[in-house]
Amino acid sequence: MIQLLKQQSLIEAWFREQFRLTPPPIYTSVDLRNAGFKISPVDTNVFPAGFNNLNSDFTSLYIQIAQSTLEQICPHVNKILIIPENHTRNLFYLENLAVLHDILSNAGFEVRIGSLLEDLQDEKEMLLPSGKKIHFEKLIRVENKIGVKDFFPCLILLNNDFSAGIPDILNNLDHQKMMPPLSMSWVQRLKSSHFSHYSNVTAEFSKLIQIDPWLITSLFRQCGEVNFMTGEGEDCLITHAQNLFEEVQKKYDEYHIEQKPFLVVKADAGTYGMAVMMVNDPKELKNLNRKQRTHMSKVKSGKTVNKVIIQEGVHTIETVKNKVAEPVIYTMGRCVLGGFYRVHATKKADENLNSPGSHFEPLPFKMPCNHPQHDKAADDVCNLFYVYGVIARLAVLAAAREIL
Amino acid sequence: MIQLLKQQSLIEAWFREQFRLTPPPIYTSVDLRNAGFKISPVDTNVFPAGFNNLNSDFTSLYIQIAQSTLEQICPHVNKILIIPENHTRNLFYLENLAVLHDILSNAGFEVRIGSLLEDLQDEKEMLLPSGKKIHFEKLIRVENKIGVKDFFPCLILLNNDFSAGIPDILNNLDHQKMMPPLSMSWVQRLKSSHFSHYSNVTAEFSKLIQIDPWLITSLFRQCGEVNFMTGEGEDCLITHAQNLFEEVQKKYDEYHIEQKPFLVVKADAGTYGMAVMMVNDPKELKNLNRKQRTHMSKVKSGKTVNKVIIQEGVHTIETVKNKVAEPVIYTMGRCVLGGFYRVHATKKADENLNSPGSHFEPLPFKMPCNHPQHDKAADDVCNLFYVYGVIARLAVLAAAREIL
Repeated sequence: MIQLLKQQSLIEAWFREQFRLTPPPIYTSVDLRNAGFKISPVDTNVFPAGFNNLNSDFTSLYIQIAQSTLEQICPHVNKILIIPENHTRNLFYLENLAVLHDILSNAGFEVRIGSLLEDLQDEKEMLLPSGKKIHFEKLIRVENKIGVKDFFPCLILLNNDFSAGIPDILNNLDHQKMMPPLSMSWVQRLKSSHFSHYSNVTAEFSKLIQIDPWLITSLFRQCGEVNFMTGEGEDCLITHAQNLFEEVQKKYDEYHIEQKPFLVVKADAGTYGMAVMMVNDPKELKNLNRKQRTHMSKVKSGKTVNKVIIQEGVHTIETVKNKVAEPVIYTMGRCVLGGFYRVHATKKADENLNSPGSHFEPLPFKMPCNHPQHDKAADDVCNLFYVYGVIARLAVLAAAREIL
Repeated sequence: MIQLLKQQSLIEAWFREQFRLTPPPIYTSVDLRNAGFKISPVDTNVFPAGFNNLNSDFTSLYIQIAQSTLEQICPHVNKILIIPENHTRNLFYLENLAVLHDILSNAGFEVRIGSLLEDLQDEKEMLLPSGKKIHFEKLIRVENKIGVKDFFPCLILLNNDFSAGIPDILNNLDHQKMMPPLSMSWVQRLKSSHFSHYSNVTAEFSKLIQIDPWLITSLFRQCGEVNFMTGEGEDCLITHAQNLFEEVQKKYDEYHIEQKPFLVVKADAGTYGMAVMMVNDPKELKNLNRKQRTHMSKVKSGKTVNKVIIQEGVHTIETVKNKVAEPVIYTMGRCVLGGFYRVHATKKADENLNSPGSHFEPLPFKMPCNHPQHDKAADDVCNLFYVYGVIARLAVLAAAREIL
C-alpha cells in the first residue's frame, strides 16, 4: 500500500478529475476488508446510517465537508428535507439521524425531517440517550411536491433505502431533487452492477499507480436465475463458484498466500446482511440444508431471491482487543468524512460482520482519513486510514457511475 | 452577538450567495478586536503568515478546506508554486511556510517553493526547530513564465506582500495566475479602500440580521495629503479626528458605554504595524514631537507617508492569564480555517498589539470556528469563535470586493 502513499498528489488529482466527470453520490458508507495483502470494499451503501459512530472530535471537519459538498452538488440550496427510515425504536438509528441533522444544520442549512410513519400525527419530538433531541414532522404531498407543513424545499435527502419498495408519495415529483436518486434503492440496484463498475474503476486506477488491481478488488461472478428453494439454477452457481475458487487460488499462489480462499454468496439486491452465506468449498453449495435454503431465499423486500452474486471473500487482519474488526468509511460528495471499526466479539476473520443480530461495537477512528504523514511508517494508523479513504473513494466513484 | 447565533442558516446562506457573486481571496488573516459591546476587524491581511500558530489538532480540517477552495477557485490546477517572503532568518515565518506547504501538499497538490533571494544558489534545504524541513528553489523566468527548474505551474501562490515593491521578474506573465493578485500588495492597496468596502458589506449584512452595523464596524476617516515631517495637512487630520471622536462618543452614549473612546492613526498603505499611533484626544495631534513624526512618516517600502487613515479604536476585553489578547482569524476561500490569540504581556487594552518588536505569544484556538453549539451559552468559546468567523468573513468579503 506504500504505492498509494507515495503517489498522493497523483491520486488526488485523478480523483478530482474523475469526480468532475461523474458527480459523486451525496453520501455513502463503504464496508472495507483489509487482509494485509489486499484491501477491498465488500459493501457500498448509498443510504448510510451510523453517522453517530464517527469520531465527534472531527465534527468541524464533517460540517466543512457538508458545506463544500452541497455547494458543489447543488448550489443555491438553502433548505433540506430528510426522509428517514421508519425505525422509531432503533435508538442507534435515531442517534445517527440526529448527528446527520446537526452536521447539515451547522453547515448552514435549514433542515427538517419528514417522516413516512403512517401513525404520526403532525409532529413528534424525541429525546435521545445522548441528550440530543430529534423532531419528526409528517411528510405530506401538495400537488407534485412533498414536504412538511410550510416547508417544501428543492432538495430531499433520502436516508431510507426503500428495500421494502418505494412509497407512492415519492413518485413523479416536480422541481424537487432527491439525493441519492430513487434509482439507487435496493428495489432497483444490484450489487453485481456496483462491483462491475468498481472493477472498471480499479482497472483504470491501478494502471495509473501501477499496481495489480486484484490488490484492491474482489473477484466476483453473477448468476441470474437461481431458486434456492427448488434448487433450480444451482448448477450455474456451483460452476461459477468452482471457477472463482480456482482463480482466487491462482492469485494466492502468485503472492505466496497460505490462507485458504473463501467465497461469499449474496442476494444481488440484498441489504442488512440478509441472504449472505460464506462458502469454504464449492461442494458446500451442492449440499445446502433447508435452513440454509430458507436463509438465502429471503431479503427485506420479501421478494424471492433469484439473482445472486458470488464474491471472493477477503480475510480481515484488523483486530481490536483480540476481536475481529472491519473498517467502515463514510463519505460525503468526493470527500472522506472518517470512519469507525465494526468490532465483533464472537466472529472469525472470514465471517460476515454485518449480519442480522450482529451486535457490533462501534469504535470511532482516532484519526481523520485525509492526513497521511510521510515521515511515519506506512502502516501507521494515519497512513492506513488515508489508504482506506482512497479505497472507499474508488467505491464511491463506482457508485457515481451507477447513478449516471 | 446572540443575533448572529440565532440566525446561523440565514447568515450562511447569505455568505454562500455573496461569495458566488464575488469570489473570495485565496487566503487571509483578519485581526479582530472584541470590546464586549462590539467586535470589529482592525486589519485584513491577504498575504497571511502565521499558519504555524493554528491548532494542529484541526489539520484535517485545513486540508479539507484547501481542497475545496482550490477546486472551487481554480479547478484543473494540480501544481502550485509558492513565492514566500525573503525572511530566511525568521524561524517563525519559516515554520509558517512549512505548515502552509504541508496543508497544500496533503490537499493533494504538488507544491514547490520559489525563492526571490538573490544569493540563493539553485536550492537550499533548511531544518526547522519543529523538525519540519523546508526546501527552497531559486525562482527563475523562462520567457514569460516563472518557476523553479522544471516546474512552471499555472498557479502562483503569493505569500509575500511586496511592501518594498514588486520585483520585475513577476511582471507581465503569460498563462500563470497569481493569487492573491499583485494589485493587493501594499504598494497599491489602501486600508481606507478596504474599510470602505467593509462598511458597505456590514451595512448590507446588518440589514439582513437586523443589528446596528456599528456593533461590527469601526468608524473611520481618510486624509489624503498629510506630511508628518513638515506638518502640512495636519489640520485636516485634526478636524477629522475631532469629528470622529464626537461620532464615537455619541455611539458610546447611545449604548451607555463608560469607557473613553480612542482613535488609531495609521499610514493608509502601511504594514507590519509600522506608522501606527494611538490617539486619546485630538489635541495630541497638534503637539506631535519629532520622534512621533518620524515614526509616522516611515513605512516598510521606504516611501513617505501622505495618505492616512484615522480609525475608531476598539478596546479588547479578551485576556489570557491577565494578558491582553487579540484574536486573529485565518480563512481560505470562503471558509474559516481557525484562529489564534496574539497574547501580549506588556500592552494595555487600547494599544496596538501588532507593532514592531511586539513579541506576542500565540495561543491557538482550542475549538474550530464553524461549530457553534446552540445549547451552550452565547459567550461559550465555541459560540464566540463562530461569531469571530462571521466577522472575519465579512472582512474577507470586503477584500473580495477590493480585488474585483
